[in-house]
Amino acid sequence: MTGIETAHWPARVEIMDVAPRDGLQNEPYLLPAEKKLRLIRGLVDAGLRAIEVTSFVHPKAVPQLADAAEVVAGLPQREGVAYYALIPNEKGYERALEAGLRHIALVMSVTETMNRKNIKMSVAESVEVAQRLIERARGDGVKVRMYVSVAFVCPFEGPVDPERAFDLTARFLDMGADRCCLTDAVGRANPRQVAHVFQTLAGRHGTERIAAHFHNTYDLALANTVAAMQQGIRFFDASIGGLGGCPFAPGATGNVATEDLVNLLHQMGVETGIDLDKLCDLSEYVGEFSGSVPPSAFYRATRVKRKAS
Amino acid sequence: MTGIETAHWPARVEIMDVAPRDGLQNEPYLLPAEKKLRLIRGLVDAGLRAIEVTSFVHPKAVPQLADAAEVVAGLPQREGVAYYALIPNEKGYERALEAGLRHIALVMSVTETMNRKNIKMSVAESVEVAQRLIERARGDGVKVRMYVSVAFVCPFEGPVDPERAFDLTARFLDMGADRCCLTDAVGRANPRQVAHVFQTLAGRHGTERIAAHFHNTYDLALANTVAAMQQGIRFFDASIGGLGGCPFAPGATGNVATEDLVNLLHQMGVETGIDLDKLCDLSEYVGEFSGSVPPSAFYRATRVKRKAS
Repeated sequence: MTGIETAHWPARVEIMDVAPRDGLQNEPYLLPAEKKLRLIRGLVDAGLRAIEVTSFVHPKAVPQLADAAEVVAGLPQREGVAYYALIPNEKGYERALEAGLRHIALVMSVTETMNRKNIKMSVAESVEVAQRLIERARGDGVKVRMYVSVAFVCPFEGPVDPERAFDLTARFLDMGADRCCLTDAVGRANPRQVAHVFQTLAGRHGTERIAAHFHNTYDLALANTVAAMQQGIRFFDASIGGLGGCPFAPGATGNVATEDLVNLLHQMGVETGIDLDKLCDLSEYVGEFSGSVPPSAFYRATRVKRKAS
Repeated sequence: MTGIETAHWPARVEIMDVAPRDGLQNEPYLLPAEKKLRLIRGLVDAGLRAIEVTSFVHPKAVPQLADAAEVVAGLPQREGVAYYALIPNEKGYERALEAGLRHIALVMSVTETMNRKNIKMSVAESVEVAQRLIERARGDGVKVRMYVSVAFVCPFEGPVDPERAFDLTARFLDMGADRCCLTDAVGRANPRQVAHVFQTLAGRHGTERIAAHFHNTYDLALANTVAAMQQGIRFFDASIGGLGGCPFAPGATGNVATEDLVNLLHQMGVETGIDLDKLCDLSEYVGEFSGSVPPSAFYRATRVKRKAS
């Protein structure tokens, strides 16, 4: 092996765009369902094959996503595209299935403090809820993606003991979750830590059932992506236009921008099936409805008008 | 070896801050010498031991640095700190030595188009100028850093044949340049390319005489840094507060911010000798005189005031 590539280096990466859920949930405005659907159609047209479209939480908890059923009803039916919704509990699960979804995402945080702040349960309670939902989903033939969140650094407890993330990941995969996505919600994971975590997980579970979700708050998302790819990881989350910001630092970025991730991959000769130019057109639309220039380096370098010279 | 670390992974990295020259040269305002000196003193106090302080080009060519002699006269004398100035020709060399400098930097671009646009010479002519200056500097006991610029991607000619960068680097090192710094002035190098280039250079010349200079225009600087470190590279350039912007894309960032690079390294357990907190105080000063919030992820995540909750 030479250079950056390892024996595990993936030739193709699959990106899940989480902007319609994780992104919009952290924006201060309410986007009408029709505009959400325009965003989602744009993602499908650009080549995305996995999209987190909404959340079936209680409408009061996340008013930005109160129109979940309406959004799901309007999704473009396209073969090979998986639409995920975040599900907090059995009630949410039922609403998602009624709406017609066949892919769900569950979330829990590795640390007690964060889990309580985020979903008001202990880690043990969350695991029980997840177990019930995973069992039900398996019975219904519904795919389950499990977010193992705050897997690297907790904003309240600091660096996370990787054994806790390993243990939870193993348990959810054993329960029958189709994939576990290890999440760095504060953007403070570093490539050394990322390499260690994914090396261990890939060694124990292979790479088909493991995904990574990096935030770019400290500009580390792409370095972390490469570190994970060197361990064979090929499923990554991103958000068109970097939509969503950072809930922990208002001046900072949150989810890594999909176009920055796609550009990195294409520059390295890794396939994604995504049209970067269409993605940037869509980022322009994100700029329109959000009222600010997307914090995406690729967008700013290629689409922000040059000064007259 | 496990995880991200390779047999060549450096335990310590030395950062050259290029803000006072490469940064300010690309800013639209003229910063008075006293403020430049405050910036430089701040860098020294924060632990920087290599700083590019100015350029002895013709004052009409770069009015931002017309006060080169005044800046050099006011430099704080601190043991172990190397102050570099960019030198375009013999006249500039003489002015730099008169002013009292003992470290110079020379620049040339690997591609003909960029070299002509930047310094109005062919590559062959630049090599001749460099050869004369390196010889003179060796005779005077002056240290020479050679920028091998546009070593990865040229904004005019596209991807650069690495053999051209290898050839020029070898020639400058043979001439007696103390170190060659391979520069990605447009921020379009990618980690795969970076790994290949530095693997080859480290194999041929070792790592003591090779440095890297990455721009963050496409958010790739830190990923490229890690890729270079995996090949043993331990000399990197950066600019406090990301000062300088990108001459090719006004809406985009240019030099990677020193604080983002330092944070990456410290998070990975790599020593720099730099105080990140002091660096951020200085970044605040950069924000004051530049009139805009520095495009540094670490600064924005840690220093931009939180909204009232």
